[in-house]
Amino acid sequence: MDIWTVMNIIGLLSFAVVGSFKAIREGLDLFGITVLGTMTALGGGITRDLLVNNIPNALKTTTDITFALFGVVLAIVLYQIFKGEFKNKYFILIPDAIGLAAFTTTGALIAYSSDVSFFGIIILATLTGIGGGIISDILLGKIPTVLKDDFYASCSIIGAIAFYLSIQIGINVGSSAFICSVVVLTIRIFAIIYEWKLPRFN
Amino acid sequence: MDIWTVMNIIGLLSFAVVGSFKAIREGLDLFGITVLGTMTALGGGITRDLLVNNIPNALKTTTDITFALFGVVLAIVLYQIFKGEFKNKYFILIPDAIGLAAFTTTGALIAYSSDVSFFGIIILATLTGIGGGIISDILLGKIPTVLKDDFYASCSIIGAIAFYLSIQIGINVGSSAFICSVVVLTIRIFAIIYEWKLPRFN
Amino acid sequence: MDIWTVMNIIGLLSFAVVGSFKAIREGLDLFGITVLGTMTALGGGITRDLLVNNIPNALKTTTDITFALFGVVLAIVLYQIFKGEFKNKYFILIPDAIGLAAFTTTGALIAYSSDVSFFGIIILATLTGIGGGIISDILLGKIPTVLKDDFYASCSIIGAIAFYLSIQIGINVGSSAFICSVVVLTIRIFAIIYEWKLPRFN
Repeated sequence: MDIWTVMNIIGLLSFAVVGSFKAIREGLDLFGITVLGTMTALGGGITRDLLVNNIPNALKTTTDITFALFGVVLAIVLYQIFKGEFKNKYFILIPDAIGLAAFTTTGALIAYSSDVSFFGIIILATLTGIGGGIISDILLGKIPTVLKDDFYASCSIIGAIAFYLSIQIGINVGSSAFICSVVVLTIRIFAIIYEWKLPRFN
Repeated sequence: MDIWTVMNIIGLLSFAVVGSFKAIREGLDLFGITVLGTMTALGGGITRDLLVNNIPNALKTTTDITFALFGVVLAIVLYQIFKGEFKNKYFILIPDAIGLAAFTTTGALIAYSSDVSFFGIIILATLTGIGGGIISDILLGKIPTVLKDDFYASCSIIGAIAFYLSIQIGINVGSSAFICSVVVLTIRIFAIIYEWKLPRFN
Repeated sequence: MDIWTVMNIIGLLSFAVVGSFKAIREGLDLFGITVLGTMTALGGGITRDLLVNNIPNALKTTTDITFALFGVVLAIVLYQIFKGEFKNKYFILIPDAIGLAAFTTTGALIAYSSDVSFFGIIILATLTGIGGGIISDILLGKIPTVLKDDFYASCSIIGAIAFYLSIQIGINVGSSAFICSVVVLTIRIFAIIYEWKLPRFN
């Protein structure tokens, strides 16, 4: 199992835990928790696959959804133990950042192999990273957190630009994907530590 | 006209009535009522068709949308008469249950003929049954009822599993579809009578 | 540059400005404003392309998204100057009406060249015109304005019917598209001036 597979599994589990926690807190039932948890983990990739005209990978294979479902079970157990409050916020933020890096990179790779423009690559990479969280917030009738707070989507955007530039200067696709992951993860960790925010204008 | 066609028509009409009632109660205008009514009836099937990469059947033929539009008109008339309150709740819940059974089975059949996994069949069957209701709740800015209350999506999931198992043990597709319908409808009626609920964890 | 291109550019800019203004007022950050602005401009077309099984044009080319992004920048500047209040409401409503006409017509043309029914053409034309606004309202957790107030989607529906009838009586596609645009724009301007509304039933 390579580092890539490991990062994706960490991402699926942590995204599913984050989504399930939101659902438990809102008082959703077991089905609602399962939908929120799995959609947070898989929704970004499903949306990206729809946009490039593929049947979503999550519906064709069983691995991704199995990990997402395992994340839902994990969340229910963790919630009973910790009541949704972790003393150490890094306990969930760091795995989530690894997931963001892994998903963004998958998105960039699939976009690169499709018939899309520079903007298309940036959008599909970012959407793969943040789409699941947006869908779960919409299902809860909330303005998606990623549109209001934090320096989160911006990490994906910068990573996708790094991926594109790497390929433009002649670096091979595999190494460009690695660079994308490292850039997203590094910037996200800085953003967490220094509590970066984007400007508002109202 | 076979039993199958009849079930689908009952489903389109009752789903459109349920969706239109929600829209009328929220004070939407005639266009809003039409969108909510038709999307509740057709939204699950449209989403499923998108996921398996088909142009939605509802856009290619005129029958489904005609029944959905008829359901919207029916709802506006019924609302004037009953003011949205039916003395007998079974008056709407039983046709709705028939629709859930018909739509879940259509979804299972289309998923089975596509390139998806076991989980893909369950998801697409359930989504065909409950997707329209979820979309209409999202359009009203509400948490979809199906994620919070009732034993509704679970009927679709159990029906889809019954469909899959039937095929695995060698029963032909037609009979498996029939079994799926009967399972969804039976379980849903029990759920209505005994007011089943799924557990919550908050 | 023909009238058609000009109308589309006016539409992209004015839709992006309208969406960005909503985002700024809700206190979204720079990323949120960019998403709301670009999705208001491009979301209708993207949804239509998904439904007819095309990779969205907005992801394949760079022109549309460039104009949408320019609209976002324009909105931020205009907001600082006017604080989101224009003394003359026609300043934004007329360009928005031109956009509605242009987008509806594009939608009708693409639907006509796809394998969809009469209803499919009406739905895809209208969706191309109003889909972006609906998506941005959903992202803000609001009931889409177009479902509640105003005589807006109705202009697209009437324009799409005019397009369909023109083709049925033997007018060529180009002239039918022109008729569609003129009908949408004219009716929309009347609707603005005379404050037309659709009936409600609650």
